[in-house]
Amino acid sequence: MTTRGRQIVLAARPKGRPGLTDFRLEETAIPTPAAGQLLLEVQYLSLDPYMRGRMNDGKSYAKPLEIGEVMPGETVAHVLVSSNSAYVKGDVVLARTGWRTHALSDGAGLRKLDPAAAPITTGLGVLGMPGFTAYGGLRVIGKPQPRETVVVAAASGPVGSLVGQLGQLAGARAVGIAGGPEKCAFVKDELRFDAAVDHRAPDFPARLAAACPDGIDVYFENVGGAIWEAVLPLLNDFARVPVSGLIAQYNGVPDGDGTDRLPATMRQILSKRLTVRGFIYYDFASEHYADFLREVGAGIATGRIRYREDIVDGLENAPGAFIGMLEGRNFGKLIVRVAA
Amino acid sequence: MTTRGRQIVLAARPKGRPGLTDFRLEETAIPTPAAGQLLLEVQYLSLDPYMRGRMNDGKSYAKPLEIGEVMPGETVAHVLVSSNSAYVKGDVVLARTGWRTHALSDGAGLRKLDPAAAPITTGLGVLGMPGFTAYGGLRVIGKPQPRETVVVAAASGPVGSLVGQLGQLAGARAVGIAGGPEKCAFVKDELRFDAAVDHRAPDFPARLAAACPDGIDVYFENVGGAIWEAVLPLLNDFARVPVSGLIAQYNGVPDGDGTDRLPATMRQILSKRLTVRGFIYYDFASEHYADFLREVGAGIATGRIRYREDIVDGLENAPGAFIGMLEGRNFGKLIVRVAA
Repeated sequence: MTTRGRQIVLAARPKGRPGLTDFRLEETAIPTPAAGQLLLEVQYLSLDPYMRGRMNDGKSYAKPLEIGEVMPGETVAHVLVSSNSAYVKGDVVLARTGWRTHALSDGAGLRKLDPAAAPITTGLGVLGMPGFTAYGGLRVIGKPQPRETVVVAAASGPVGSLVGQLGQLAGARAVGIAGGPEKCAFVKDELRFDAAVDHRAPDFPARLAAACPDGIDVYFENVGGAIWEAVLPLLNDFARVPVSGLIAQYNGVPDGDGTDRLPATMRQILSKRLTVRGFIYYDFASEHYADFLREVGAGIATGRIRYREDIVDGLENAPGAFIGMLEGRNFGKLIVRVAA
Repeated sequence: MTTRGRQIVLAARPKGRPGLTDFRLEETAIPTPAAGQLLLEVQYLSLDPYMRGRMNDGKSYAKPLEIGEVMPGETVAHVLVSSNSAYVKGDVVLARTGWRTHALSDGAGLRKLDPAAAPITTGLGVLGMPGFTAYGGLRVIGKPQPRETVVVAAASGPVGSLVGQLGQLAGARAVGIAGGPEKCAFVKDELRFDAAVDHRAPDFPARLAAACPDGIDVYFENVGGAIWEAVLPLLNDFARVPVSGLIAQYNGVPDGDGTDRLPATMRQILSKRLTVRGFIYYDFASEHYADFLREVGAGIATGRIRYREDIVDGLENAPGAFIGMLEGRNFGKLIVRVAA
């Protein structure tokens, strides 16, 4: 057992796109658990777009991180030392340790993972927060019906890939939007969406329209920006728009062309009687999380539900991987392997 | 009985603000009812903001009016001649004759009014489409709870005045936004809202914030534009925004200041988990209209629910009154007295 741990803290608040110098890798002493506590060793760290918001100063649904604080995040960890009767050494848990190699816990908020049931990394992706974001947003807001059309962007990512597959399981057509031919091929051929559209194509709006001949009934919004503009005219009357993320504007909104796009969106909301509703996965957790684990867990076990993980080695590489994710450079659920 | 009727048709499609020359008054022959038909003589014509949209060419929830067609609209009429066994001469009905003095009907879509139950003009306002717009939007989308804050603009108008009063009946605080001190005094003193705020005041956003010390839980959107901008930062987590109208943009959206306001709205929808949902009153009619008539009818009868009508004399004055309404010059539900 090593005697020194490592952690990554917020070094500076980024303006716009974060840079590597906004993060700092620190060595730390490995703490000793008191009675009732556990010492956790992190195996996998999840990198998720919401973390960009936590680096800002402004009001959001979570309080901002202070400079010098450890970057927040969900991890898969195993118990190194237990002074808590509910856990034994070797137990694998889902925890919120943040970007670090070791952490103490009193057991609160941990969830034990069964490595025999599914690969433990799925607890950070398709069977974790991103997966439940897809499930909750569709179940509570999107409500896809048979023969409707469900559209989602970042379709090769952990939320989007499940949105389309759950839409299909509900009997709807699934159309995925992704960046570049490789991701589109994955969405169409591996995830088996009904169609995939490359948002980098110069005629993207026309391609999206062609892929949605009956319009769009559910648009699961996790991107914003130019994709929303292409989706808006295709939405059908009474379409539902769960808003789970706006990654296109997390690094700031680029200077526009002087057009105020709000009136057009409001006009469509009114004339088509759209429902546009923001949510965060935990809003729905108490009511729907158990169903989610059972239904999606079964889909994973049978192979009906597919997913892709993009695993980066080494905690020290987390900042670079995170910066790339905000620009769509990951391919699948982005996870950092912190310890083997 | 006169032998000539009159009607007002769409003469030209307005660009932006309509002008008097966009309408044309025509004389017509009074038709004779065939078997099964009624001849209706219009007493009151309702003028409503949605009519502006019907003058345009673009796609909306209703097909656009053709040039030369009679302007659409709901009316209170009485039966002059009946060849339909379900009606007798003198019956008073709610009809959709449009802007005209006389019309034939086969009885379909008519609703008999009881002049003893409430003044017949209320069928066009507080007990008609505008009233049900308020009722349905609150009942299905807004869902005001005790001690919440409900905000509505155009608060002296037929929709807004009922939104606030129904909010109070549900136990919420009602804050009305209106244009000018006279309308604000009416909202506060006659309609008995908890507060009224003048949107023409230079410090309107600060005044609105002061009137909503606990934030806003339901914002009933019937205006759009600058009022939405002042409301947005005050919305609480999980606030509901029924969108029933956008009168500020019906004559076109003024040139902006180069700011794209959509990203800020989307960010608030996400971080505060807002529900923004458009609707049209008839979406909810089959399920809720009977409850509406009973509940609001009882409130009118006891005096608990108050309303104001702005009655203009003469069909020939409908275009000028309509143009003024789009600029907020009416004070209460705008109705044209077509015949005594």
